[in-house]
Amino acid sequence: MKSAVIGAGSWGTAIAHLLTDNGARVSLWARRPQLAEEIRRWRENRSYLPGVGISDKILVTSDLEEALYDAEFVVMAVPSQSMRSIIREAGKYIKSHCVIVNAAKGIEIGTLLRMSQVMKEELPSECRTNIAVLSGPSHAEEVARRLPTAVVVAAEKKEVAEEVQDLFMNSYFRVYTNPDIIGVEMGGALKNIIAICAGIAEGLGFGDNTRAALITRGIIEITRLGVKMGAHPSTFSGLSGIGDVIVTCNSLFSRNRRAGIEIGRGKSVGEVMASTNMVIEGIHTTKAAYDLARRHGVEMPITEQAFGVLYEGKNPLDAVDALMMRKGKHEMEEVVEKEEKRQDLKTW
Amino acid sequence: MKSAVIGAGSWGTAIAHLLTDNGARVSLWARRPQLAEEIRRWRENRSYLPGVGISDKILVTSDLEEALYDAEFVVMAVPSQSMRSIIREAGKYIKSHCVIVNAAKGIEIGTLLRMSQVMKEELPSECRTNIAVLSGPSHAEEVARRLPTAVVVAAEKKEVAEEVQDLFMNSYFRVYTNPDIIGVEMGGALKNIIAICAGIAEGLGFGDNTRAALITRGIIEITRLGVKMGAHPSTFSGLSGIGDVIVTCNSLFSRNRRAGIEIGRGKSVGEVMASTNMVIEGIHTTKAAYDLARRHGVEMPITEQAFGVLYEGKNPLDAVDALMMRKGKHEMEEVVEKEEKRQDLKTW
Repeated sequence: MKSAVIGAGSWGTAIAHLLTDNGARVSLWARRPQLAEEIRRWRENRSYLPGVGISDKILVTSDLEEALYDAEFVVMAVPSQSMRSIIREAGKYIKSHCVIVNAAKGIEIGTLLRMSQVMKEELPSECRTNIAVLSGPSHAEEVARRLPTAVVVAAEKKEVAEEVQDLFMNSYFRVYTNPDIIGVEMGGALKNIIAICAGIAEGLGFGDNTRAALITRGIIEITRLGVKMGAHPSTFSGLSGIGDVIVTCNSLFSRNRRAGIEIGRGKSVGEVMASTNMVIEGIHTTKAAYDLARRHGVEMPITEQAFGVLYEGKNPLDAVDALMMRKGKHEMEEVVEKEEKRQDLKTW
Repeated sequence: MKSAVIGAGSWGTAIAHLLTDNGARVSLWARRPQLAEEIRRWRENRSYLPGVGISDKILVTSDLEEALYDAEFVVMAVPSQSMRSIIREAGKYIKSHCVIVNAAKGIEIGTLLRMSQVMKEELPSECRTNIAVLSGPSHAEEVARRLPTAVVVAAEKKEVAEEVQDLFMNSYFRVYTNPDIIGVEMGGALKNIIAICAGIAEGLGFGDNTRAALITRGIIEITRLGVKMGAHPSTFSGLSGIGDVIVTCNSLFSRNRRAGIEIGRGKSVGEVMASTNMVIEGIHTTKAAYDLARRHGVEMPITEQAFGVLYEGKNPLDAVDALMMRKGKHEMEEVVEKEEKRQDLKTW
C-alpha cells in the first residue's frame, strides 16, 4: 500500500520518515526540483530536517503525477496558503477511493476557510468524503527522532479515521480518533494567536503565571468561537487544542512565539515582519479570528487585544491592562451559554 | 475590614502582601515564633519569600488568637497535611459570619479528603457555609512581584465567592468565580501527579511533544475522576485545572517536576526522597488518586503507570511503553460516557 506525502518541509519529511518506519511504501513530493534533488543526493533534508536520514525506500520527486501514482493515502503537508493551488493540481492524479489527510494547520486568508474546506472545494466530488485531518502537539524534529508523541485524527467517516490511525500509529506515535473535524482544525489553526500573545508577555518580562493565564483563557475564548462554528467544546481540551497550544508556547522553534517576544520588547510589528523572510502565521490568524469573532458575535478579549497590538499600533502594556481591568467574571460564563446551545457530542 | 492569613510560607506571605496592596488590614500568622520574629525584624520573609518587603501595616504574629481577632476574612495557607490540626485550633477564634478561604492544595493522606472537607469537619457548624477555595496558576514569587496573574475562587454561595473576588482582585491579580468547589480543589491537588510524570519524561530525554501529550491526556483522566466525584468537567479546562498544570510542569521551582527528572534519570524513589527534607506532594497525591480511581472505578492510565514507578519499582521506560502501546482510542471516549452521566453545570 503506497502513501504519498505532498510537501517536503520539516513536517512532510518527518511524516514520510514515520510512515516508512511503519512499513508503508512512501513517496515524498517537493515543490522545488532542487530540493527533491538535494534530498535524493544526501538522503537527508538538510534544508528543513537536518540530521535525519531519509530511507532509500522513499521515492523523492518534484513530479506530482509520479508522487501520486498508485497512492492509497495522500498526506497534504504544504503551507496553508499554498493548499488551494497544490490540491487543485494534485486532484487530477488522486484516485477516488484514496484517503486524503490534511496535515497543514491554518486558515486561508481572504476566504477564512479551514484547510479541509479548501480541499473539498478543489477536489473532484468523488474524493470529498475521504478527507481526514491530522493535528496535535508534534514538532517534526521530535517525531523524526522517534520521541513519544500523541496526535488526533478527525474524519467524517469513522472508517476513514481508523484507517489513518492504523497507518500512522506505532510505538512512538500514538493516534487518537475524533469525529470533530471543525474543532480539530480550528484548534490547530488558532493556537498561534496564543503563541504570539505568550511571546509578547514574555517580552514584557512577565512570568509563568501570566503565560498560564493567557493559555487557559485563550483556549477558552477559542473554544467559544469554535463552538459557534460547529465544533464540540471537548475537542479544545484535547491534543489539537490545549495540547498543541502548550507545545507551541513552550517551543523555541516557534516563529510566532519569537515574533511576540520581539514585539513585547518594543519592536514594531513591521520591523519584526521585515526581519524574517518566513511567514509569521499567527499574525494572519489573529486577523482571521478577529473577523470570525465579529461575524459570529463571539467575545474574544485576548484576540481583540492582540489585534489592537498587531494591526492598530496599540501598546502591549495597555493591552495587558485592558485585559486585567475588565470587570470580575464567572470563570465559565461562556460555558453556561455553551450548555444552553450545546452541540451534541458526535460519536459517528 | 481585617483579613487574617494563616501560614507564613511563600504563598501565605504573598497573599498578605497582595491584600495589603488592596487596602485591607492584614495579620499574618506564622506557626513558629522564630519565623514571626524574623519577619517582624527584617520586614521580609527571608526564609520563604526573600526580596519582598513586608509592609509595616501587616501584623505578624505566632499567636492564633491575636491573628484572628476581629477578622472578617481568614485565608488558610498552610501545608495540606497540617490543615486539620491548625483549622481545629483556629476555629476557636473564628467568628461565625467570617469568610474562610482555603488556599492550600492537596488531599489529606489517609482520609483522602479535600481541604475544604477537612475544614468542614473541624470548624464549628455555623462557620461551614462560608468556606471558599482559591486556586489557579500562581507562583507566590510572581504574585509578590505584581506580575499579572489570574486565579479562580469557588464557593457554595455566590455571595461568598464574590466577596472573596472583591477582596483579592486588582490590576495584577484577576479573580474568576466558579461554583464548582470539588473541581477547583481536585484540579489543584492532582496536578502534581502530572508534574512528576512530566519530570520523568524530561529525565528520560523526551521532548516537548511527550510533555504536551502527558499534560493533555493527564488532565483528561483527572477530569474523568473529578466528574465521578461530583465535579463539572469544564472546571478542569480552567485556571485550576489546565492552567495550574501548565505552570507547575514548566516551573523550575516545582519540587514535583524536579523529583520526576531525577527518577527519569535513573535515581530510585527512595534516593530522591532522602535527598530532600521537603515533602514531594505528588508522590502522596499519586497514591491518593490511584486509590480514588479504584474506589470509583475510573480508568487513569497515566496515574496507574506513575503509581507503578513510584511504589512498585517499575522501570520508567516500561511505563512509557505501556502507555504508548495501548490499543488505539477515540480521543474523547470518556467524554462520551461523561455526556451520558453528565453533571449539570451549576450556576448558583
